[in-house]
Amino acid sequence: MKAIAASSIPRGFRFAGVHCGLKKSKLDLGILVSETPAATAAMFTTNQVKAAPVLVCRNHLKKSRHRMRAVIVNSGNANCCTGPQGLDATKATATEMARALGGLDPSQIFVCSTGVIGAPLRVEKIIAAIPALLHSRAAGTESFEQFARAIMTTDTQPKWAAATCRVGGKQVRILGCAKGSGMIHPNMATMLAFLTTDAAITPSRLLRALRAAVGPTFNSITVDGDTSTNDTVVVLANGQSGAPALPGAGRDYNQFRAALERVCCSLALAIVADGEGAQRVIEIEVRGAPSALAAAQAARTIANSPLVKTAVAGADPNWGRILAAAGRSGVRFDFQRADIWLAGVLVCRRGREHPFDERATHEKMLAKFVPIVVDLRSGKGSARMWTCDFTQEYVHINASYRT
Amino acid sequence: MKAIAASSIPRGFRFAGVHCGLKKSKLDLGILVSETPAATAAMFTTNQVKAAPVLVCRNHLKKSRHRMRAVIVNSGNANCCTGPQGLDATKATATEMARALGGLDPSQIFVCSTGVIGAPLRVEKIIAAIPALLHSRAAGTESFEQFARAIMTTDTQPKWAAATCRVGGKQVRILGCAKGSGMIHPNMATMLAFLTTDAAITPSRLLRALRAAVGPTFNSITVDGDTSTNDTVVVLANGQSGAPALPGAGRDYNQFRAALERVCCSLALAIVADGEGAQRVIEIEVRGAPSALAAAQAARTIANSPLVKTAVAGADPNWGRILAAAGRSGVRFDFQRADIWLAGVLVCRRGREHPFDERATHEKMLAKFVPIVVDLRSGKGSARMWTCDFTQEYVHINASYRT
Repeated sequence: MKAIAASSIPRGFRFAGVHCGLKKSKLDLGILVSETPAATAAMFTTNQVKAAPVLVCRNHLKKSRHRMRAVIVNSGNANCCTGPQGLDATKATATEMARALGGLDPSQIFVCSTGVIGAPLRVEKIIAAIPALLHSRAAGTESFEQFARAIMTTDTQPKWAAATCRVGGKQVRILGCAKGSGMIHPNMATMLAFLTTDAAITPSRLLRALRAAVGPTFNSITVDGDTSTNDTVVVLANGQSGAPALPGAGRDYNQFRAALERVCCSLALAIVADGEGAQRVIEIEVRGAPSALAAAQAARTIANSPLVKTAVAGADPNWGRILAAAGRSGVRFDFQRADIWLAGVLVCRRGREHPFDERATHEKMLAKFVPIVVDLRSGKGSARMWTCDFTQEYVHINASYRT
Repeated sequence: MKAIAASSIPRGFRFAGVHCGLKKSKLDLGILVSETPAATAAMFTTNQVKAAPVLVCRNHLKKSRHRMRAVIVNSGNANCCTGPQGLDATKATATEMARALGGLDPSQIFVCSTGVIGAPLRVEKIIAAIPALLHSRAAGTESFEQFARAIMTTDTQPKWAAATCRVGGKQVRILGCAKGSGMIHPNMATMLAFLTTDAAITPSRLLRALRAAVGPTFNSITVDGDTSTNDTVVVLANGQSGAPALPGAGRDYNQFRAALERVCCSLALAIVADGEGAQRVIEIEVRGAPSALAAAQAARTIANSPLVKTAVAGADPNWGRILAAAGRSGVRFDFQRADIWLAGVLVCRRGREHPFDERATHEKMLAKFVPIVVDLRSGKGSARMWTCDFTQEYVHINASYRT
C-alpha cells in the first residue's frame, strides 16, 4: 500500500488503533471519530446468520436518524453466534464509547467485530481500552494507518484508498480502509470497509451513492464463495470540507459518486489481491450473455470454480474448465459460439480450441493480474467480477485458522 | 477395494481393458459387452456444455429403442469442445465396435470419454485397438477389473461394487464400476458409472429404478461443485439370470431397486473417498429444514464451502463456518434455534457454542469418516450429502492437471 498523504485525510475525523488483548500481540481495536455529527449510510451482510454488531448497528442507524459520531471495531472475534451475551457486549461497547465521548447517545456509535465465529467476546478488554484509545485519537496519517491495521484478521497488509473531487468549487476528500481476505463473496463477505468524507450530504443521498458504488466493486469480488456473518460497509460524511451540501443529482453529485466508487474499487481489488494465499488477481469479464444478470451469474460461477482457480494458480491455460463452469451456471447459451481469451490470448473460438502458444500463454498467466474474457455471443449482457487464484497456501491458512 | 467374487459377475457380460496410447502407459480403453441385447437406461450431465459422446449416446438410446449391446470408454481425453471432428470420432468408434461385433447397428453401442476437455481425440488409436480388445474380452473378475482401471483419470484406485437380489426365487446379480475424483457435483459431475445386471426388465422400468437410485447416491455427492461435461451413468440389463421379467412394482421390483441403489451408494461413496487429495469423507445431514428441498440446498451449500472443507482437512471443529454456510444457502431458518453435531459431538446448541472438549473433538475429526449433523429446528425436511475435505493436495493436483 502506498502511504496516504496527510492532505487526503477528510477534515474533522480522527483515528486510533491499539492492542487491547483480544489477539496475542497485534493491534485489535480501532476507532474513527467525527468531531461533529456525520450523515451515515451502511450496507450489511445478506447472510441470515448475522453477528451481534450487525443486528445492533441496524437499530442504531434508525435510532440516530442516520447521524453518527464514531465507529469502533475489534478484530480477533466476530461476536457472532454468541447469544444474548453477544448483543450485550456490543451494546456495552457503544454505551462506553458514547459516555467517554462526552455523553453522546449510544445509538450514535457504530460497532463492528471481525474474527472467529462462536467464541464469547471478552468485552471487558474493549471497555478497558476505550479511554486511552479515545485519548490517543488524532487526524494524522499515522493514526489512520493504525486504525487500518487494527481491523485486520488474516490480511497480510492494511488496505486503504483515497480520492478527492470538487463540490461547488471546493475540494472534498474521501478516505477509506477495508479488511477482508477469506469468506469473500458478493453481497459482502467477511469484509469490513470504513469510508469517511468531509462532503456535506444528506443520509439518503449518501446511501444512494454508497449502493451505486458497492454494486460494481465490493459486490463484484469473491475469494471463496463464502458470505460472512459480519460484512459491513459504512460511510460517514461530516460536511467539514466547507463545500456546499451536495444535491441529489447533477455534475457535482455524479463526481462525488464516481470518487466514492473509485475508493471502493481500489479497496475491493486490494481485498482480492490479498485473498488468502492468493498469488494473482483474476478478472473475469463475461460478454454476449442474454442479460447483464445472466452475465453476472456466469462470471460468478467461473470466479468460484475451484478448478478454474487452481488452474490459474498453476498458470495452466485450461480453458475447458472455464467453459464448463459457464455451462453449469444456469445461463442459457450455445457453447459452440463461445470465445475465450486467457491473459489476452484467444484460446477458444466457437467452443473449440483455437491454436495458441501454450508456453507463451503460461508465461503470461504467471503475472499478478490475469484477465479472462468469455464472449458467449448469445446476447448483449456483460459483467465483470474479480477473484484470486486458489493455492495450497489458502488450504494451509484455513485448515488451522483457529489453532 | 475388496476383490470382486467371480459369482458376482452378471451372466452374459464380458469385459476388457487395454492401453491404446491416449495415456502414456496406463490402461485407457475399456469395453463391456452383453452377449445378447440388453435393456439400457442412462442419465447424463446437466451441464449445457456436453461432450460429443453424450450428444451421440442420447441419439443411440432412442435409435436402438433402449436395447444395446456394448459400452466402449476411453480415458485420457474427454472429447468435449472438439467440434464436428469430435462427433465424427464418437460415431467412428461406435461404427467400428458394431462392425467388429459382427455387423450390429452402431446405435447399439454406447460410447463414453473422460479426461482433458478441448484437445482433439486421436480416435485412430481407439479404432486400431478395438479388434484385439474385443478378442480379449472375458467374463472373469480379472477382465472386469481391467475395465474398471481403464476408465480412471485422477482416481487413485478403481471403484466397483456388487449386489444380488432374488426375483421369482432366482438370483439376480448387479455389478458396477465408476470413475470420478474431481469435478464431482450433484446432477452428475465428472463421473462415469457403468452398471450391469442379468435381471430381465423393460427399459422404462429400468430407467425408473435408475432414477430412484441416482438421487440419494450419485446426485448427493460433491467434491468441488464443478459439474462436468461428460457425466454419464448407464445400466444394461440382459435378462441372462434366467429369472422372470421384473414387474413394475411389488416386492421383487423393490428389492431390485434397493440392490441397484446399494451398488450406486457404494460407488458414490468410493468416489468421494477418492476425491482429489481427500483425507476423509464428510457426511452432511441437515434436519429440521422447512422442506426436503431446503434441507438439500443447505446441505449442498455446506458441502461446497471451501472454509468448511479446509477446516475438516485440519480437523478443526470450526462449527461457525458450518452455520455461516447454512445461513447463506438461501434457506430460511432462525439460526438461534440451530444445533450442530460434529463427529458426534454437540458443538453448537441454539445457535451458540455448546461447551465441548476441543482436543477430543479434534481427535475424532482425524477419522476417515466425519459426520456433521445440522438440525435447523425449523421444519421437518431432511437431506444427506457426502463430500470430502479440501487439502493442499487437491490444489497441487489441479494446478498442474494438464502438464
